[in-house]
Amino acid sequence: MFREKIKVLDCTIRDGGLMNNHDFDPRFVREVYKALSEAGIDYMEIGYKNSKRLFNPKEFGKWKFCEDQDIKKVIEGIDSRTKISVMVDVDRVDIDDILPKQNSPVDMIRVAAYVKDVDKAIFLANHFADKGYETAVNIMAISRALDNELSECLQQLEKECKAGIINIVDSFGSLYQETTEFLIKKAKSILKTKEVGMHAHNNQQLAFANTIEAIIHEANYVDTTIFGLGRAAGNCPTELMLGFLKNPKYDIRPILDVISKEFIPLQKKIEWGYFIPYAITGILDEHPRAAIALRESDKKENYREFYESLVGEVGE
Amino acid sequence: MFREKIKVLDCTIRDGGLMNNHDFDPRFVREVYKALSEAGIDYMEIGYKNSKRLFNPKEFGKWKFCEDQDIKKVIEGIDSRTKISVMVDVDRVDIDDILPKQNSPVDMIRVAAYVKDVDKAIFLANHFADKGYETAVNIMAISRALDNELSECLQQLEKECKAGIINIVDSFGSLYQETTEFLIKKAKSILKTKEVGMHAHNNQQLAFANTIEAIIHEANYVDTTIFGLGRAAGNCPTELMLGFLKNPKYDIRPILDVISKEFIPLQKKIEWGYFIPYAITGILDEHPRAAIALRESDKKENYREFYESLVGEVGE
Repeated sequence: MFREKIKVLDCTIRDGGLMNNHDFDPRFVREVYKALSEAGIDYMEIGYKNSKRLFNPKEFGKWKFCEDQDIKKVIEGIDSRTKISVMVDVDRVDIDDILPKQNSPVDMIRVAAYVKDVDKAIFLANHFADKGYETAVNIMAISRALDNELSECLQQLEKECKAGIINIVDSFGSLYQETTEFLIKKAKSILKTKEVGMHAHNNQQLAFANTIEAIIHEANYVDTTIFGLGRAAGNCPTELMLGFLKNPKYDIRPILDVISKEFIPLQKKIEWGYFIPYAITGILDEHPRAAIALRESDKKENYREFYESLVGEVGE
Repeated sequence: MFREKIKVLDCTIRDGGLMNNHDFDPRFVREVYKALSEAGIDYMEIGYKNSKRLFNPKEFGKWKFCEDQDIKKVIEGIDSRTKISVMVDVDRVDIDDILPKQNSPVDMIRVAAYVKDVDKAIFLANHFADKGYETAVNIMAISRALDNELSECLQQLEKECKAGIINIVDSFGSLYQETTEFLIKKAKSILKTKEVGMHAHNNQQLAFANTIEAIIHEANYVDTTIFGLGRAAGNCPTELMLGFLKNPKYDIRPILDVISKEFIPLQKKIEWGYFIPYAITGILDEHPRAAIALRESDKKENYREFYESLVGEVGE
């Protein structure tokens, strides 16, 4: 009943870090790693590799930089087959910070880029591949990509990039299933030698559905987060994905435990999930930053005014 | 871009009533009716027509009985093209309580029934159709229906029932898109002279997705609720559906307003939405009653034990 090729990459700490300046306590990160390991999850994405010359370490938590020594402290002594992934953003990483694979606890490096930055993404992915890492490119804001530019981007990735996986990223949570189907089929038709993955946001409660849709159309890599933790509306919940996939190597129970023990208390400190301003930015195919700002203001439940402020900005 | 035939039935008060013994303040119900009317929603389902000889009116709110006089008080003086729907359950309604259509504020009566009760459902729907009402049959717990029995049920509805609409009800929130597609296609293939509708539950965050899936496969009636209010995990959110449908007759803004003003405060009194015990019953295709009981107990965050209690009950 299951498709063995499907791999789950849990990016709870990486995407969730966008809601708390990547400032998760190492104890919490270790509990997440333990739960993912026991659950049989294939990859854990633990944060970003950002340059400390571009971002002040005093203003951010450890997981914006993911020093190898910090990763080692989190994972040491835990029996696990879960690989470690980190993300890098174009123009924010210092490639000299990245040691050769054999000297690092990191297994995979994913390069996040907009369509327009595909050349930079290819350079980075190839550089990290040459250092021995598994690599992936995540194409962000896919809902804003023009079809001809996306075609060229995918063709270039197929021809010039050593990354084994290309992920479609619905940054704004604006895709419906039919567009997800269109995009995954398109990616599969061009990326003959690579795997395709899906990273969905939950603004319209469609992250899980769009990830299933991607699986139906042969995506084999899926991004999930525990209890949906992630930027704004969050992501496709790991626990729901494990309920859907029938691969006997996965066990939902450690995920249920860590939600009870760690994520229910966390809800008192960080807000994520289905809130109307995030639904509005999803419906309107907008970045959630205005909605996140609204939720931090005293107008946080003033939905109509927020909606009007976004749809009012029209003009030829 | 839009399909004119699609009608939205908002059942906020009816399905939400399952979480508070149908005890909504008439002022609240009137605000909901006003918002739905301004938003251009086609139907509002306001509650159940239950027999007062079977249920003690002192133990339940007005919307378990939906006396015509109570409905009239809620809707009078409001300019509206939104029709009023009520639901009846097999074996719980006294048909003599239902006046002829011309003497009632009700436009539509929907009969909720399991596959096994199709004969009773047909009797009731035909009786109400003869009294002048629009009628529908909602086939509950569709995820538990055996295929041959469902076929027979649908064939009988097509041949013997005067109801114009047959709704597929995912009572447990356990359907994925592929099964939704299968069921809607099956219903459409047998119900040649009727419309097909979808009523989804959100246990696995798939209520909106499965309703879109039903629309893709030619369902023209969709059930929604404001802010997803409904039993346990709730339903397909009205606001998301209006963002999806492109019919210019709908306006999302009155829905955003009523969420701000009425539903955010309501969240302090009633719990609904995505909670792990509801996700678990959805994944396991179980009625949510055990999960609802858990949420009312002091073990409400003890997810693993709850999961084990459900999967432990196996045996040939």
